Amino acid sequence: MRDYVTRREYDAWVNESAALAVACGYPVRDSMVNDNSGVIFGADQYAAFEQGMWSREPFEAIAIFDAINEPAIDGLPKAAMKFAEFGGLCEKLIVVHPGKFCSAHLHWRKTEYYEVVLGEADVFYAPEIIDFPELGVMASEVIERKPMPEGHPWPAGIRLAKGRDKAWELLTSYQRVRKGDAKFVVPRKHLHGFGCPADARTPLIIRENSTYNHEPTESSKGDLMPEWQHIHDNAFMHPGVAESRLGTNIREG
Amino acid sequence: MRDYVTRREYDAWVNESAALAVACGYPVRDSMVNDNSGVIFGADQYAAFEQGMWSREPFEAIAIFDAINEPAIDGLPKAAMKFAEFGGLCEKLIVVHPGKFCSAHLHWRKTEYYEVVLGEADVFYAPEIIDFPELGVMASEVIERKPMPEGHPWPAGIRLAKGRDKAWELLTSYQRVRKGDAKFVVPRKHLHGFGCPADARTPLIIRENSTYNHEPTESSKGDLMPEWQHIHDNAFMHPGVAESRLGTNIREG
Amino acid sequence: MRDYVTRREYDAWVNESAALAVACGYPVRDSMVNDNSGVIFGADQYAAFEQGMWSREPFEAIAIFDAINEPAIDGLPKAAMKFAEFGGLCEKLIVVHPGKFCSAHLHWRKTEYYEVVLGEADVFYAPEIIDFPELGVMASEVIERKPMPEGHPWPAGIRLAKGRDKAWELLTSYQRVRKGDAKFVVPRKHLHGFGCPADARTPLIIRENSTYNHEPTESSKGDLMPEWQHIHDNAFMHPGVAESRLGTNIREG
Amino acid sequence: MRDYVTRREYDAWVNESAALAVACGYPVRDSMVNDNSGVIFGADQYAAFEQGMWSREPFEAIAIFDAINEPAIDGLPKAAMKFAEFGGLCEKLIVVHPGKFCSAHLHWRKTEYYEVVLGEADVFYAPEIIDFPELGVMASEVIERKPMPEGHPWPAGIRLAKGRDKAWELLTSYQRVRKGDAKFVVPRKHLHGFGCPADARTPLIIRENSTYNHEPTESSKGDLMPEWQHIHDNAFMHPGVAESRLGTNIREG
Repeated sequence: MRDYVTRREYDAWVNESAALAVACGYPVRDSMVNDNSGVIFGADQYAAFEQGMWSREPFEAIAIFDAINEPAIDGLPKAAMKFAEFGGLCEKLIVVHPGKFCSAHLHWRKTEYYEVVLGEADVFYAPEIIDFPELGVMASEVIERKPMPEGHPWPAGIRLAKGRDKAWELLTSYQRVRKGDAKFVVPRKHLHGFGCPADARTPLIIRENSTYNHEPTESSKGDLMPEWQHIHDNAFMHPGVAESRLGTNIREG
Repeated sequence: MRDYVTRREYDAWVNESAALAVACGYPVRDSMVNDNSGVIFGADQYAAFEQGMWSREPFEAIAIFDAINEPAIDGLPKAAMKFAEFGGLCEKLIVVHPGKFCSAHLHWRKTEYYEVVLGEADVFYAPEIIDFPELGVMASEVIERKPMPEGHPWPAGIRLAKGRDKAWELLTSYQRVRKGDAKFVVPRKHLHGFGCPADARTPLIIRENSTYNHEPTESSKGDLMPEWQHIHDNAFMHPGVAESRLGTNIREG
Repeated sequence: MRDYVTRREYDAWVNESAALAVACGYPVRDSMVNDNSGVIFGADQYAAFEQGMWSREPFEAIAIFDAINEPAIDGLPKAAMKFAEFGGLCEKLIVVHPGKFCSAHLHWRKTEYYEVVLGEADVFYAPEIIDFPELGVMASEVIERKPMPEGHPWPAGIRLAKGRDKAWELLTSYQRVRKGDAKFVVPRKHLHGFGCPADARTPLIIRENSTYNHEPTESSKGDLMPEWQHIHDNAFMHPGVAESRLGTNIREG
Repeated sequence: MRDYVTRREYDAWVNESAALAVACGYPVRDSMVNDNSGVIFGADQYAAFEQGMWSREPFEAIAIFDAINEPAIDGLPKAAMKFAEFGGLCEKLIVVHPGKFCSAHLHWRKTEYYEVVLGEADVFYAPEIIDFPELGVMASEVIERKPMPEGHPWPAGIRLAKGRDKAWELLTSYQRVRKGDAKFVVPRKHLHGFGCPADARTPLIIRENSTYNHEPTESSKGDLMPEWQHIHDNAFMHPGVAESRLGTNIREG
């Protein structure tokens, strides 16, 4: 099983996704299309390229176009710096091909919300914070005003990527999110993931707004706040995905 | 000079603006179209309705459709609550008719950024924090990493609303912001305002994302965080505008 | 009852409609926004402006932006000129405010089809050619391969403009046409008309493609084929509407 | 050199193109996505798939989604049937990847016009009818009112598909056509072709409206007017392209 994507495959996927983003009116700038735009969630997911992004097979891979990541530090009282890593403002556009998924994960610091721009989203989540002492997540230690909306049981017919069922088993709530719906909020420390229905006519496109995005990828790390460059705010449920999220193995030539 | 808008005038203006928002693909929900969607910045600005929103005359009046105002409290360490009013996530769509302006102001807590969705924006701002001891704004007391981009001098031909020149005089930097441009960030405590060119074919439409919006209007105050309902985070440069921002005087019948 | 629209009312209506057209991505050029863009179907319909275009009251008035009217003569065999007035290519965008209608009519020469771009259309029509000897329409004298699709009975709650019920009584078929539907074809010599539901959030916007548009309005007649300038291809069911279609009474000052 | 496209390659290309069409708001219906949507202009152009649609190499291949092909016969005087094959109404959306072209050709019967929906078009044409006695095209035998606009010389840097320079040499006029431009008309019997700039961020998308489309492809021929099924209205400048236009060689499995 290969663990790389060729330059040709990568560029076709990412350029197609960027073109869809532009067609949806998103302000894609050249710097936003780079070698971290295509995200493959784990070495075993490169197999997606054997049949390609339009095979409708279940794999965990998405394209992301980051429009802004603003720490929103300026103008804060100096004492607020201590907690500023939980704030800030970030926006990106996410393109998910039919059958593909964003891997199950949580953020320690980032709260986010979605607007569906094209297609429809299958969103899976845990409506309350679940204790993960090994990740430093303990509901009793944080503010929790109200759980997320309860959602529905999973519908029949969802096919997850091979070997990933266990990683998704705590995301027991499901919602179909459509264009025009109210923004769908995922508060920090809540498990979540999403996918594009395998039989969709188009990829799913989501506009995601959030607090600051602590992801030290090759393309972004030079722009991160110096104080925060050591932070990686993603905890994935499947082993090895966190590293894979930060860099894509593109084979040149 | 009248100080009210009739129900018919108000509904025509706000419904037209909401229709433009929908045409631009924005997820306008019925609850977002209400008696605080149309904002008239001061009693003297109701005169805008004598010739109407398409007269291209300079007045300070905009329509706003609030899509989300999320405190982003859940999942915070308990000690972070102290500074949480500087964080959170908010999004709205703003419609500005040709010749009209959003009044010159600053926010103590809110950092925001703009995406132009339709038309072009004339944005005016002070690139650094200016001391206003009477407003409790002192640059030396807050974090200030880098100023905003310097901008350009004002172009010829900008006509402000009558009597408002003084309120805008500290907003010395200017930028024309267009669809497809990088997001334009306005950090908290920085003076800013914007307008739609008077000769434009269409109203200007801006998508504004920001931290939490502390504006206790009639329509929103029931949904605000109880701890924050006393906060009004807008400081306007022209006297009397702050009160006017919170409620629009619509004459029924 | 007045029989004019003021310049201010007209410009507000037509500029708003043009802005919606631009927001929908339509290529509106300056020359397409003129004193024939706003069409008021009969002297009695100027009363629409007493409460304005957003009153949701039933009146017959629409805005039209003509993008092209091409005779498609070049390259025809010379003998084909005889029937060329039944051919050609035309395209326009039509904006119908909530509660408003395009008046019941037929074209002797023009076949057209619709694409709904925004909102939803209530389309009313006669599925077969009806004999109108006084109009020179006799089904037996023309080609008629197949009738239009049968359609549905009128739904409850359609409110026509006052005094216009008789003009619509032969348009017995109804269809709701939505964005994404197959193109809706109205062959020449078939009665048709359409409206925007009175409770709609946005105006209805239709892209209409057709054969040549023989309408000698003030704005268009200089561009018409010289041989065809005498032709007016619209037969309206209500008396006096045909003249009204060709010019709008705008009161200056 | 292969002369086929695999099912996987074809479906990826056509599905991606259909998704772009949907993202641009075009009413793509399932029946419009079929084995004639992807058009490869000649056996030698299948080589495009060796490096794929995003290689930016010059090849002649486009995706077409046919929305309507209406003969517009109904309601015609019976004697007009003789020339009706020059009339009618057709609409399609065309997707051209960077570096790719629609092959140089003319139609005996079809007049068409373009609206650019995404990206920018390089349009090449002969502004007057050129005599091709062997094709039955003689300017002196047809109506020719005015030539097409003169256009510009070809800009530097246009790379045509290998071996196709001769086929394009009579298309001496060039225009760059952009979103918002006036409709670009190509009258019947005029040579034309177009391409997407090789360095474009997105494919070029054109909405083409025209008179009836006489192309008896596998997918469309059952829907053609019986009297016209024998007609193929495309004359391509490069040998062998006409046959290739009517069917795409898709290798299953």
